[in-house]
Amino acid sequence: MNQIITIGREFGSGGRELGRRLAETLGFAYYDQEIVGEISRRTALSQQYVRAVVEHQSAFSFPIHIGRSFYMPVNPAFEQTMAVYREEARILTEMADQSDCVIVGRCADYVLRDRRPLRLFVYANMESKLRRCREKGPAAESLTDKELRQKILGIDKKRAKYYEFYTGRPWADKLNFDLCINTTETVIKEMVPAVAKFLQAR
Amino acid sequence: MNQIITIGREFGSGGRELGRRLAETLGFAYYDQEIVGEISRRTALSQQYVRAVVEHQSAFSFPIHIGRSFYMPVNPAFEQTMAVYREEARILTEMADQSDCVIVGRCADYVLRDRRPLRLFVYANMESKLRRCREKGPAAESLTDKELRQKILGIDKKRAKYYEFYTGRPWADKLNFDLCINTTETVIKEMVPAVAKFLQAR
Repeated sequence: MNQIITIGREFGSGGRELGRRLAETLGFAYYDQEIVGEISRRTALSQQYVRAVVEHQSAFSFPIHIGRSFYMPVNPAFEQTMAVYREEARILTEMADQSDCVIVGRCADYVLRDRRPLRLFVYANMESKLRRCREKGPAAESLTDKELRQKILGIDKKRAKYYEFYTGRPWADKLNFDLCINTTETVIKEMVPAVAKFLQAR
Repeated sequence: MNQIITIGREFGSGGRELGRRLAETLGFAYYDQEIVGEISRRTALSQQYVRAVVEHQSAFSFPIHIGRSFYMPVNPAFEQTMAVYREEARILTEMADQSDCVIVGRCADYVLRDRRPLRLFVYANMESKLRRCREKGPAAESLTDKELRQKILGIDKKRAKYYEFYTGRPWADKLNFDLCINTTETVIKEMVPAVAKFLQAR
């Protein structure tokens, strides 16, 4: 069976960088946003819509009705959201069949749970996350620290909702992970050999 | 500066075993219950009293009074409890001065925080903790699963109170650790090389 590493992460904690570097070091395939493109090519849904759903913009505006009558109400938007998730889960499974891989986000730890992935969760304190966001590029430049902090918390709140909606588990609960890695005041690159070594401890 | 690894752990998660094996592998000194003996030899308090305090039996039966009057009430038992903690903290510092070491429990992550220890937290799901307790020895034999589960939860509750009392921080909060390690369905021995490698990532 192929080796799989899944990465859950707080926004700004360097989880994607850790994933990319792990994949490079181990010679594993790496997936994150590529999944979105893959989904959009395989369904009739527009790239923009898929991105909105995957980025958790719309999945939670649809209440799930518990119908009393024989006819369950059908909510087309909800159905479409679920279709995206199912398609995504199918694609994750296909990827895991193809080769060893590192998958960042996308509830991969849950979707692929039967294959016993090495499940990592990456986190850091707020100061460290603010710094990483500012170092990453111009997107954060126009924001004050307070605004950036709110953005970080907001994105993680959406991630939590998304994760909890599809998995029925609390987000960031350490029991759902094999290893939780604090990247506060660390150099991600230097952690890679140690994290990779955990694959051998299984 | 000497290298220090501190280990917080849930009862039954194998944290002590991990600590001992890490110390052996790395050639570090190892401390846990030894600290109690050391304290008792250095103070006038009886071994039994020290053990009771360190095992969190008594530290929390003493309410801290906020006096309105100029005279703060003095609670001799509380003073004695604090004296044990202060002595313990002094000894931990002395140990960290002497050599590289692994210290299990005793709020060492907090006491030695200025020395930047590698702070580990070891945890597992309840089934795994029950199994480890049963494998460890006869102490659990006479207990039903329900009783053993209650014992495990009770011990961790005391640890949490003890930790929170002396550090002012929530117990088992992943932000207080560099690495949280889930030992569910793992062989502790096989994790040691990977955990040891994290020392190099700093």
